[in-house]
Amino acid sequence: MKSLLEMVNIDIPIIQAGMAGGITTSALVAAVANQGALGTIGAGYMSAASLKEEIGQVKKITNKPFAVNLFATNLESTATDIEEMQDFLNQYRYELGIESGAGQVKVKDYLKEKIGVILEENVPIVSTAFGVLSPEFIKRLKANQVTLIGMATTLGEAEALVEAGYDMIVAQGHEAGGHRGTFDMNKHPDGADIGMLVLVQLFVEHLRVPIIAAGGIHSQAQMDTLTSAGAQGVQLGTRFLLAKEAGTNRAYRRALLQANTDDTVITKVFSGRPARAVVNRFIMEVEESKLPTLPFPIQNALTKDIRAAATASARPDFLSLWAGQGVGALTQEETVQEIIDSFVRD
Amino acid sequence: MKSLLEMVNIDIPIIQAGMAGGITTSALVAAVANQGALGTIGAGYMSAASLKEEIGQVKKITNKPFAVNLFATNLESTATDIEEMQDFLNQYRYELGIESGAGQVKVKDYLKEKIGVILEENVPIVSTAFGVLSPEFIKRLKANQVTLIGMATTLGEAEALVEAGYDMIVAQGHEAGGHRGTFDMNKHPDGADIGMLVLVQLFVEHLRVPIIAAGGIHSQAQMDTLTSAGAQGVQLGTRFLLAKEAGTNRAYRRALLQANTDDTVITKVFSGRPARAVVNRFIMEVEESKLPTLPFPIQNALTKDIRAAATASARPDFLSLWAGQGVGALTQEETVQEIIDSFVRD
Repeated sequence: MKSLLEMVNIDIPIIQAGMAGGITTSALVAAVANQGALGTIGAGYMSAASLKEEIGQVKKITNKPFAVNLFATNLESTATDIEEMQDFLNQYRYELGIESGAGQVKVKDYLKEKIGVILEENVPIVSTAFGVLSPEFIKRLKANQVTLIGMATTLGEAEALVEAGYDMIVAQGHEAGGHRGTFDMNKHPDGADIGMLVLVQLFVEHLRVPIIAAGGIHSQAQMDTLTSAGAQGVQLGTRFLLAKEAGTNRAYRRALLQANTDDTVITKVFSGRPARAVVNRFIMEVEESKLPTLPFPIQNALTKDIRAAATASARPDFLSLWAGQGVGALTQEETVQEIIDSFVRD
Repeated sequence: MKSLLEMVNIDIPIIQAGMAGGITTSALVAAVANQGALGTIGAGYMSAASLKEEIGQVKKITNKPFAVNLFATNLESTATDIEEMQDFLNQYRYELGIESGAGQVKVKDYLKEKIGVILEENVPIVSTAFGVLSPEFIKRLKANQVTLIGMATTLGEAEALVEAGYDMIVAQGHEAGGHRGTFDMNKHPDGADIGMLVLVQLFVEHLRVPIIAAGGIHSQAQMDTLTSAGAQGVQLGTRFLLAKEAGTNRAYRRALLQANTDDTVITKVFSGRPARAVVNRFIMEVEESKLPTLPFPIQNALTKDIRAAATASARPDFLSLWAGQGVGALTQEETVQEIIDSFVRD
């Protein structure tokens, strides 16, 4: 089989994770690409117009390949039965000095339009989370020679992605920060919890596509260890959150620098999907309320104004402080070049 | 620092986990020792008399060193407020044809007496779970040149063990089967969930004692990977459950052979402490009941008759099918010699 490096035409087997929500600035994505690794625009929550704008910006800074990350499943959703959660969340809105929440929430999906932009702009690589793209989308992307990277947290999920035509698989271990990629939600409603090393070996043994390890990775020693276990590359999220080029806000950066390895938890309170974050007051109180979180992306839409206000007023207690278990090892902000260099020392 | 092999005087850096509850027969422990690895009597639930008997049996079959595993904390406990859980459990007792549960449960602790036996019998190695032995016990064991192995799931726990005088640390990753060794229960009421590779590297970096990796390990490739990450050895539980010499019952063995990597969950329903087991009807139904489990070891005492009856009638639905995430890779029963050999092929 072709290697990861050949398939996506990069020199260093590091993928910058497609973190959604303003983290993956064009400066970050292009800097990663210019270092010879794979930068990724986290376009999960973007509109098609924003994605087009971002792609244009990245292309101004690099002529190297880069990827766009999408949520594989349709997000179109309207919810009205949200009063109880809104009432609970209003205490935080009051504290943050913003308006009470609405009685109805509507989330628009732009997946089809974003795939159109990707094809127009000839983006060479698409990575996805939360499922398998529809056969129609896969066909269109493949017809344009787009390389497809899927994320899986169980062997069954990985097999479904490969079967559908994905070219390589990110093995997302339980250690990983941000959203669990799990999409076999009937079996794993809180996300599958397989440790990265077990998962990588399972995938390497059973699949005939390149495997990329993800989850808690922060050092060259780990990358070497995982390569010796059969992974062709690693995907890093948390480490790039502290890149100087990233869009991570100051309060979030400070929280990451202070967190210990055992300060993260998996929670659905921010988005309705299980995700790993540094524990804070919002997580603890919403969990303690025992209120059922609404399904993704409704819960995400509900907490959006709270997170925005918390960002504006630098209140980490109300932010979604996504972080993997490698967070405890991070002690400084660095440039992308410094980060990549630290993985390829001889 | 002295190495693991020097400290416990073995040739192969594999520790057979001190699984409690009839698994670690004298045949298993002695066979592991005779192969040059470290066998362990799982004495957590044993009386002092049973432990003395077991030690005598092991000594008849081997003159190599072996370990005894204890629960570090006092188990003495009486509970009367157990009616609601007993009522719920009585449906299973009825189904299994055994008597209804009592209204009071008393658990006797034999820790002091077992340490007395260990000293009398000159057992050279003691490993513990669930905490730090008292200074008095540590002093007595150290005075007898006993090597102490502690289990930790966070850096804070590991530091507490080393500070108290433990000689080496088992880094128990989230992947591990059976009880979580977590004892910082205020911070981690459901057990800490740090992945093994992250945990091993954290401990190797911060501690000056040998580190043993535990959690989902089933192959030489993993052992080599972990050794390259700085671990001095590995601890195996699940793999030895399928050893021909182990006391694992038939229904349990069949369930292990059938389980996939993502078929295990962490649950408190059997013992009151978080532990990883192959998911079954008992786990699903008690979890769904939302009844609070009673504290360890009361919940364990409550479910004991049910598990015994399930063993007698080969009903895996009611057994505590402890297993780590390596379970999906296991396809056969083997002798201890075959298991150890598979880790030391050139």
